[in-house]
Amino acid sequence: MNSDNSWITLKDTVVYENKWIRIHHRDIINPNGGKGIYGLVHFKNFAIGIVPIDENGYTYIVGQYRYPLNRYSWEIPEGGGPENEDILKSAKRELKEEIGAVAKKWFLIQELDLSNSATDEISYIFLAGDLTFYSTEHEETELLEIKKIKVEELIKMVIKGEIRDSISVAAGLKLFQLIAAKSPLISENFPQLLLIDITQL
Amino acid sequence: MNSDNSWITLKDTVVYENKWIRIHHRDIINPNGGKGIYGLVHFKNFAIGIVPIDENGYTYIVGQYRYPLNRYSWEIPEGGGPENEDILKSAKRELKEEIGAVAKKWFLIQELDLSNSATDEISYIFLAGDLTFYSTEHEETELLEIKKIKVEELIKMVIKGEIRDSISVAAGLKLFQLIAAKSPLISENFPQLLLIDITQL
Repeated sequence: MNSDNSWITLKDTVVYENKWIRIHHRDIINPNGGKGIYGLVHFKNFAIGIVPIDENGYTYIVGQYRYPLNRYSWEIPEGGGPENEDILKSAKRELKEEIGAVAKKWFLIQELDLSNSATDEISYIFLAGDLTFYSTEHEETELLEIKKIKVEELIKMVIKGEIRDSISVAAGLKLFQLIAAKSPLISENFPQLLLIDITQL
Repeated sequence: MNSDNSWITLKDTVVYENKWIRIHHRDIINPNGGKGIYGLVHFKNFAIGIVPIDENGYTYIVGQYRYPLNRYSWEIPEGGGPENEDILKSAKRELKEEIGAVAKKWFLIQELDLSNSATDEISYIFLAGDLTFYSTEHEETELLEIKKIKVEELIKMVIKGEIRDSISVAAGLKLFQLIAAKSPLISENFPQLLLIDITQL
């Protein structure tokens, strides 16, 4: 077995494109040597997820009606950054836009390939601390509801399945892991979270 | 604020379709009343992820070159089920196909909306126990590498970022949470996992 790329692309046709995605129809030879096709969804933006944490151990979640799922969804603050933009810059802009906060401390805690069977979308998840609040700057297509909750409540919502968005689930469970393992990242920057009793979640 | 659907669809055009996805271009009115467009990626299959666990606390991970990412990826056994198929039936078939195992115990531990800004893809993650092994039945397009590792090694790979696939990350972190919280699901069905020292992960 090898870990080299054993897919061969014979022909590439762009069949759809908008501001956010570009769909490629490819004629390919698969790793077993068989001819086939691949429909690839290219994302023009990477995804950003942020868990902002204040000095009292509160965070903020965002509720919105997600059009593709036809369902209301509670999530950590999320947004997108253009592929050539600095990731941290995108994260700072999104936090400001979504909940009106500026954070002085930033920690990248998780990278995710969101849906790798058909898309190349990648997500970066941050913890953000030392928050100052200003007014929000929601994009005109968004209608968002913001809720301030304890970090343990966020983790509970993930564990109970009340939060299903993959970025938010990974963020909540990663935060649980960092707290449970008494990670230096938590003890040095978010000591307020060490008070959370993980056996009560 | 309300949690009703405040998106209005004016026109729907299918712009691309293959065996796995269908792309809709929609003219819409967004929740703020503005006219716009939405490119929606419909997945014809839900995604399945399975963590098979044997009596000695080993699991199996699968390595493959992921075409959309142009990168090799280690993941838990994964596959897809047609939208009208029973989820558990799909999970059983995928476990048999990917690693040749039949499991008597099945537990749905997590549901995920994988990439809800543009797609409707949903994933179901299972723990599977009481395993019997037969030969594998890989799909002809797949070239897979299978590795048998301790469950703690899987969790470590997630924590270290060596595993990035969203389904596998959620599975590994959820397993960490279930073990750390000494969940009855673990103590009653996978007592071998209670021996894992989570502070060493």
